Amino acid sequence: MVKLFIKMISNKKIKKLSILSTKKGRKEEGKFLIEGYRIIRSALRNNVNIENIYISNRFKASEDYKNLNGLISKNIDVAVLDEKTINKICQTVNPAGIVAACLLPDDFKITKLLTDNWIYLDKISDPGNIGTLLRTSAWFGINNVALSSKCADAFNPKVIRSAMGAHFSLNIVGNMDLFEFKKNQYCIIGADQNGSPMDDFNYDKKKWILVIGNEGHGISENSKKYIQHFLSIPSSGSGNSLNAAVAGSILIHHLISL
Amino acid sequence: MVKLFIKMISNKKIKKLSILSTKKGRKEEGKFLIEGYRIIRSALRNNVNIENIYISNRFKASEDYKNLNGLISKNIDVAVLDEKTINKICQTVNPAGIVAACLLPDDFKITKLLTDNWIYLDKISDPGNIGTLLRTSAWFGINNVALSSKCADAFNPKVIRSAMGAHFSLNIVGNMDLFEFKKNQYCIIGADQNGSPMDDFNYDKKKWILVIGNEGHGISENSKKYIQHFLSIPSSGSGNSLNAAVAGSILIHHLISL
Repeated sequence: MVKLFIKMISNKKIKKLSILSTKKGRKEEGKFLIEGYRIIRSALRNNVNIENIYISNRFKASEDYKNLNGLISKNIDVAVLDEKTINKICQTVNPAGIVAACLLPDDFKITKLLTDNWIYLDKISDPGNIGTLLRTSAWFGINNVALSSKCADAFNPKVIRSAMGAHFSLNIVGNMDLFEFKKNQYCIIGADQNGSPMDDFNYDKKKWILVIGNEGHGISENSKKYIQHFLSIPSSGSGNSLNAAVAGSILIHHLISL
Repeated sequence: MVKLFIKMISNKKIKKLSILSTKKGRKEEGKFLIEGYRIIRSALRNNVNIENIYISNRFKASEDYKNLNGLISKNIDVAVLDEKTINKICQTVNPAGIVAACLLPDDFKITKLLTDNWIYLDKISDPGNIGTLLRTSAWFGINNVALSSKCADAFNPKVIRSAMGAHFSLNIVGNMDLFEFKKNQYCIIGADQNGSPMDDFNYDKKKWILVIGNEGHGISENSKKYIQHFLSIPSSGSGNSLNAAVAGSILIHHLISL
């Protein structure tokens, strides 16, 4: 059973936690926040490096807390805070009453992972779309996701919420350029509504990377020059395009089914 | 060229427009709001029943306004309002500077459409997911979408935003029960992560309806009793589930490809 105490928390500490809602703050502190029972349970099961867990009195009394308790190791500092303070830390209303501060994963040697398939998120701006694509990648076992510069940050709280724990099973690397993949003989595929129908694509069994572009502007010029195959999902109805996360997910599913 | 005038708008009128952000308000007034250039252009092209268009001075000076102008018929009242008033109407910051009030579509005789395929949204709560699924349905030519009771409202501004104009090519009906489809010999299919792998599904060429359930709870008990085939999208990785809109979209794509 975890030793629990009602904690007075200094305004300075609250501020240090609440800036984790910003990219700059996460970089400065080397940490990110996760909110809610399910994601925190998933983080604990995946041995994510959690430093602190803050819970409300209401959460402390819940069945969910009992379920978490056995998973919390001794080196995690768990404290009860009033709900107002928890909401301040999250900078949103957090009805779950639980938030955790985790260490950002270490930079990893990308060269070790250049034998696997990858997803590349190219200046995607909606955090919900990024989170959804991380979730799809994890589901289909594509465990490496690179983000271009000017992509929304993968550790943004909204990304984390919509990824539903996918962060803990993926290798995520930011500020990547496709050059690295070209150099390593990847088959570089782009999602593009003007591309060839995906069903006509002959896959030659090389390792691949799928590039998914911005919601409004598609794949950036900088990335386009590396792409060998532009693939589309043919429409049999109306509309100008699919949602970026949906299009990316249908293509991921298609590629892993080849 | 549309006759344009700077309009003084009464507080009462602003209120009548701003309540269109709520389901109750839309029902009372029989109207809904659409915001932004692209969606309004799409509505004009699809002859949606638009009553009023409100634009800011900034929008009036834009290239986008010139593009819209030729599409606006004489019976639509176009007026310039200050940006603050437009934001009040939308109840959000509307950086586009254009909003339109449209008449809700008439109730249609569903019996006429009981020869086509359908999508059924079962208590889906996230407006973004509903909008995304409407967009996917339109893209793949499944033009009829039924919503259960307790689903988020299809004319909610967030649904409209993420559907990107799909509303104007779809037949959308709320408060539907699956009984009607059973009575009409539909093949009733449910998206369910515990169902049979979708690739094993033998489609017998009957008309079908695909049921997509709530984000957290899946398909409701009331709907489950009508479902003949529960289909899953097998995982080759990790995680508990896919996003509801992604799972629904992959299944729609799969069913239309059979």
